[in-house]
Amino acid sequence: MSSPEPAAADDHPPGAHFLSEIRSQPEALRGLLEHAAEYERVAAAARERGATTVRMVGHGSSDNAASYGVYAFGLLPHWTALRDSISLTVYYRTGLDMSGSTVIGLSQSGRTPDVIEYVAEARRLGAFTVALTNDVSSDLAAEAEAVLPLAAGPEQAVAATKTYLNQVAALGLLAAHAAGEGDRFASQLEVVSGLLEETIAELEPNVRRIALPFASVGRMFVIGRGTEFATAREIALKLLETCRIAAEPLTATDFAHGPVAALDPLFPVWTIASDDETLPAVVDAAARARATGAALVASGPAAEAIADAAYVLPVPAPPTPLLSPILSVVPGQLFAGALAQARGLDPDSPVGLSKVTLAR
Amino acid sequence: MSSPEPAAADDHPPGAHFLSEIRSQPEALRGLLEHAAEYERVAAAARERGATTVRMVGHGSSDNAASYGVYAFGLLPHWTALRDSISLTVYYRTGLDMSGSTVIGLSQSGRTPDVIEYVAEARRLGAFTVALTNDVSSDLAAEAEAVLPLAAGPEQAVAATKTYLNQVAALGLLAAHAAGEGDRFASQLEVVSGLLEETIAELEPNVRRIALPFASVGRMFVIGRGTEFATAREIALKLLETCRIAAEPLTATDFAHGPVAALDPLFPVWTIASDDETLPAVVDAAARARATGAALVASGPAAEAIADAAYVLPVPAPPTPLLSPILSVVPGQLFAGALAQARGLDPDSPVGLSKVTLAR
Repeated sequence: MSSPEPAAADDHPPGAHFLSEIRSQPEALRGLLEHAAEYERVAAAARERGATTVRMVGHGSSDNAASYGVYAFGLLPHWTALRDSISLTVYYRTGLDMSGSTVIGLSQSGRTPDVIEYVAEARRLGAFTVALTNDVSSDLAAEAEAVLPLAAGPEQAVAATKTYLNQVAALGLLAAHAAGEGDRFASQLEVVSGLLEETIAELEPNVRRIALPFASVGRMFVIGRGTEFATAREIALKLLETCRIAAEPLTATDFAHGPVAALDPLFPVWTIASDDETLPAVVDAAARARATGAALVASGPAAEAIADAAYVLPVPAPPTPLLSPILSVVPGQLFAGALAQARGLDPDSPVGLSKVTLAR
Repeated sequence: MSSPEPAAADDHPPGAHFLSEIRSQPEALRGLLEHAAEYERVAAAARERGATTVRMVGHGSSDNAASYGVYAFGLLPHWTALRDSISLTVYYRTGLDMSGSTVIGLSQSGRTPDVIEYVAEARRLGAFTVALTNDVSSDLAAEAEAVLPLAAGPEQAVAATKTYLNQVAALGLLAAHAAGEGDRFASQLEVVSGLLEETIAELEPNVRRIALPFASVGRMFVIGRGTEFATAREIALKLLETCRIAAEPLTATDFAHGPVAALDPLFPVWTIASDDETLPAVVDAAARARATGAALVASGPAAEAIADAAYVLPVPAPPTPLLSPILSVVPGQLFAGALAQARGLDPDSPVGLSKVTLAR
């Protein structure tokens, strides 16, 4: 059912909160870094307990960030991380032995009902439970053994931006500490916060110009692979909830296994290209999309590697490709905000959504 | 790149192979059951090796079937099963220790390049590797330690139907044997093959009538939860590849966390309702969709529980809710076939696809 606390009406023009929160992301990221010591302690606790299977649970943007966590934990401490089925534990009550698992419950508000229930049950089943939330006094925080502050500051737009970005950074930081590389990762995040600042300022006017031709688009694919699959999921969700575009995220390879057949010249494809081992797969998918006549948007640090893109929205190269997703999501956020405005929609309070979703 | 063996042109009318393969599913299912002893042996081998983390890899329909595997292994032997990241192993080469894991490579043809590479690497990393394929002499079969025949018979339509259904049944059968309940599960599958026969005959004329009003629909959501999330993914993929509809699969709860905002009266929602613990979440999601004015399709064994659906496509109740997905997918397959025909498209060879996708 809908939240008892809908976003308050205020005097801001439509999308003002959304845009101001996108702009505040460098600051939010630096806010997270103030808590680096807590991330180090939680990572050490997970290691000591041998809790090296990471089960992440969340909905919407939180679940998108968890897609990044799969790669961060896989690439840094070489732990298996999964976006766990909430249903198996909360609805079907399988009672799986969870000793050996670190559970991370992701919820901006700390109030998502089935995430809270999952964490409570996982703790009973032996998992080391961690709440990753903006509200360290929430019910989620109370149920978990450890709490990690997201520290993104109050979020006023219904469509998440800075909380998603901080969730990605937080999962990376925790994974880096689990691998004994936390300090280096934190310095790299510091560098990224500076790059973010420049990127946002540069992209804003460009994105507005590019968004306009999309005013009547009804559907899109958003393609990424590896670490950038999280970005594809998050950009698609922003387009859905703020612009009412049926945007579907796909890995580069899954795209070629069926969905490519749906394309036509009025069905644009957004690609996210990062300069890592997955780049050839993304370049190949983009070529397949282009061959159908679909308009291509190329974004990410390796946007220039995508041939024949109609629109290019590059971001700077981060100190390590693992940090690309923190920069790559920004063009999508800004595009969603600009396009929503062009369509007369308000990203601060999309019809039918509220800040805290209490759906089961 | 595209396959060297595109579907051969023949004298069949458009969609004839697709429809005939849907009709042959009861027979394909019985064909699988002839191999029950092999499933029992492979399950015993996994148990003996303590390989109780199940890592499934595949693309398209194969990956959709793997979504079912998560629940089959979770509910029956209480093992953790995941749709593993192919990129971590094949592109990023993380070299994770995979002893303790059973790897299942899913590929109808046994020729999907990155699935083959993943299986080869996983075997080197200590996993117990299993190929689940229609072609037991394929490269995938050669790389794996054990081979399980899918036994669905040659598939001629590019859009998969009977191979998906047999993949779901095969994962269920393997999970049931792992739990020591294989014989009972096999008898239940036998019952389901009979129910399938009746269902297909009854649904065919109804679905044709219902598909027609969707002739100009460009986008849809397909909603399921728990075991039926696999069905939601597979129906959405059929609509994408055969009807060129931007159809996105969503869990009932994720739907409420954002995508609901995109709905309008011309954006229909397909719901899959099974009579298990997740039913209230699906009923709630359907009510949220209906509130936006979106037209609802209700399908599955508990279709009648969805209030105010514009179209109802029920299937019979299986001997156990865990087997619902084998029946629930059929209305979606038939609907995709009928709608493709109404739109002048050919599900036997969608533009831009080939039987074997060699994309990386």
